[in-house]
Amino acid sequence: MKGGPTVVVPHEGGPLRVALLGCGVVGTEVVRLLTTQAEDLAARVGAPLELVGIVVRDLRVEFDPVVDRALLTADAEGLVERADVVIEVMGGIEPARSLLLRAIAAGASVVTANKALLAEDGPTLYRAADEAGVDLYFEAAVAGAIPIVRPVRESLAGDRVRRVLGIVNGTTNYVLDRMATEGLDLDIAVKEAQQLGFAEADPTADVEGFDAAAKAAILASLAFHTRVSLDDVAREGISGITADDVSWAAQTGHVIKLLAVAERFDDGVSVRVHPTLVPREHPLAGVHGAFNAVFVEAEAAGELMFYGRGAGGRPTASAVLGDVVSAARHRVLGGKGPIESSYADLPVLPPSAGLSRFQLRLDVTDQPGVLAQVALVLAEHAVSIETVRQAPLAGRGGKKLAHLVISTHLAPVAALSATVDALGELEVVDHVTSVMRVEGA
Amino acid sequence: MKGGPTVVVPHEGGPLRVALLGCGVVGTEVVRLLTTQAEDLAARVGAPLELVGIVVRDLRVEFDPVVDRALLTADAEGLVERADVVIEVMGGIEPARSLLLRAIAAGASVVTANKALLAEDGPTLYRAADEAGVDLYFEAAVAGAIPIVRPVRESLAGDRVRRVLGIVNGTTNYVLDRMATEGLDLDIAVKEAQQLGFAEADPTADVEGFDAAAKAAILASLAFHTRVSLDDVAREGISGITADDVSWAAQTGHVIKLLAVAERFDDGVSVRVHPTLVPREHPLAGVHGAFNAVFVEAEAAGELMFYGRGAGGRPTASAVLGDVVSAARHRVLGGKGPIESSYADLPVLPPSAGLSRFQLRLDVTDQPGVLAQVALVLAEHAVSIETVRQAPLAGRGGKKLAHLVISTHLAPVAALSATVDALGELEVVDHVTSVMRVEGA
Repeated sequence: MKGGPTVVVPHEGGPLRVALLGCGVVGTEVVRLLTTQAEDLAARVGAPLELVGIVVRDLRVEFDPVVDRALLTADAEGLVERADVVIEVMGGIEPARSLLLRAIAAGASVVTANKALLAEDGPTLYRAADEAGVDLYFEAAVAGAIPIVRPVRESLAGDRVRRVLGIVNGTTNYVLDRMATEGLDLDIAVKEAQQLGFAEADPTADVEGFDAAAKAAILASLAFHTRVSLDDVAREGISGITADDVSWAAQTGHVIKLLAVAERFDDGVSVRVHPTLVPREHPLAGVHGAFNAVFVEAEAAGELMFYGRGAGGRPTASAVLGDVVSAARHRVLGGKGPIESSYADLPVLPPSAGLSRFQLRLDVTDQPGVLAQVALVLAEHAVSIETVRQAPLAGRGGKKLAHLVISTHLAPVAALSATVDALGELEVVDHVTSVMRVEGA
Repeated sequence: MKGGPTVVVPHEGGPLRVALLGCGVVGTEVVRLLTTQAEDLAARVGAPLELVGIVVRDLRVEFDPVVDRALLTADAEGLVERADVVIEVMGGIEPARSLLLRAIAAGASVVTANKALLAEDGPTLYRAADEAGVDLYFEAAVAGAIPIVRPVRESLAGDRVRRVLGIVNGTTNYVLDRMATEGLDLDIAVKEAQQLGFAEADPTADVEGFDAAAKAAILASLAFHTRVSLDDVAREGISGITADDVSWAAQTGHVIKLLAVAERFDDGVSVRVHPTLVPREHPLAGVHGAFNAVFVEAEAAGELMFYGRGAGGRPTASAVLGDVVSAARHRVLGGKGPIESSYADLPVLPPSAGLSRFQLRLDVTDQPGVLAQVALVLAEHAVSIETVRQAPLAGRGGKKLAHLVISTHLAPVAALSATVDALGELEVVDHVTSVMRVEGA
């Protein structure tokens, strides 16, 4: 926020030149919207938008008929230097980063949907755009079509965000939803998602939470005005979630969601992605299928939720075009959008920071006094029990076992792993089956 | 969108002068946020915000200690002329309109939470702000703390909105929710809402849908880039809703919500407020208590929903401050926010336009052949039946009666009243109990 005021020089007549980097599913839909909505877009911007070139990797492949082949080029460097607004939907770190920096240096405003790049090196781009006095917009990078970047960085600019809980990966939400509603096993649900085109052939980025972690980093940076990169995000995917976990969640009034959590404490912020138990009455519990939603708790505004499609060519293109209109309007009318500022510069705390509710499930010997022993271990670690539920269990290896489901009050997260270790050492504890955070209770 | 580009002259150093018109519940919370968040706000704006005066009607009443009495003044005209940003939270048409116009004429940017004024005479304010090259923001006027204005006018600027369905009045949502969950009668639920402070002593503005209609007008104007005023909104409140209506809604898998509906047809737009049957699986059905939510269907983005607190001092103040930061940042960095433009200028159609699903409930003589007669009348009016449900009914006046619940496919709305009249004329029809639209099916 230092340096003198920067004003983009108003555009002097004529159409605004738009360059498109990438022409896959999203890029094609961007072209379609630019074409079919041209008149509305011109009215909203105050000048027509002219697509002057599309960078593609391979000129020989087939494109949707809406794509004018005469605009295709492999000369990305040349193209970005003669554009007013550059749209990047190619993905990946390079050459996307170099091209965006070159565009910015040449005075273009840029719009990107590239979450990986922003999570890895957002601050470099923010700084470059700030110094050049151009806009950098990225609504499509966080939750597809859902307007979340603009609300958090603008609508809540007069408030203080305490916590963000996001379902920001449609693949895993689809998988968990199918497990919950149909009782499917994880691998069956993943296969189904692949067949429906919700999951990639290699689903690792989704299933292991990498995609959600990149979005968590961007969300946390925005919400807390602090630099958070992908490396700062504690990450656990859903590959360990069993049909049994899902069933127990339901029996205790919860659903399991893979949440991106960004939380502000007095001494810093915590940013993480993990499977989470969400009470059935919570608005996030009602987010089904491949939909996304971001739940925001702010000091004055209270609870807010933003819901919609988090992926897909057309929804993502809608978010991109909204950004293009904002950036283009600034070229026409002068001014610029908000500047990313990490003025707050809060430290990113380890995932063991703060307090959380937990649900623990353990198999124990079915004999009197077991609960007392387990409760004592929890008490010794300052973990206070809210409810205990005991269920008989088919015996294993000749032992008569019972299943304990323990919900805790808010407990210090740092104490949890020691507690679980201590429980595991009890002779009466056969096995700690699951330890999961509860959010939104 | 005509005229040359306008650029606000960047603010030259020093704090930005903020004037506050009105110091009721919202005004007090605005003062609190300006005070407690001063440092964060300065960082986000790029200059400190200095509250230079607060206009109140009566200087003698008691205020919250956060309000510095030295800032109180009755000289509204003098105050608005020496402010950079004027916040209006006094409500009502006058003197709010004159003061905002005077502020704009004097070169101030303005932020208002005044839905009545915007619904009655928004275009006058938009035009004045446009000509003066200053910002006019009004996020708090539509759905309290929920960012909906900014997403619709900016994030969806590259898309085309088809339909907006909003729960934009917390009082009626609370009342209907209590009727649905507790089986309360309307008047009991209204009294409860009054006791809890959710409803005014005179609940007419809420219960009869006037408040929702004002918000519907603003939402429709934004979504369709068309001038829609309060007089254009067809309005029906919830005063006719009975416990029986609510119970039948539940039995057919619906909940009743008072919806603000703004819909785009080929030949114009339809804007209305009425009690509506919403399928239980629809995201709007899960909006409980005094919460608000706005569901948006856009061509490319698909379905979006924005959820949060629609009223209350702190949430409303959060929305106001978000706008203040945007306006103030433009004063510091140059530029201005989006201009309200009604370039599309679509005609507002009568409420009888278009197609809708309906649910009809009628008491009929319990004898063979009745359903055939009813079905024939519907067929003659091109109203196609989706399902019929028949339930026995306690007899009345010696007649043996049955209750018919008919759900229609999409039917021409214009045909409905003639259909209902014709049904009423059938000898076998004792009484048409209810005719209600179904949305979101």
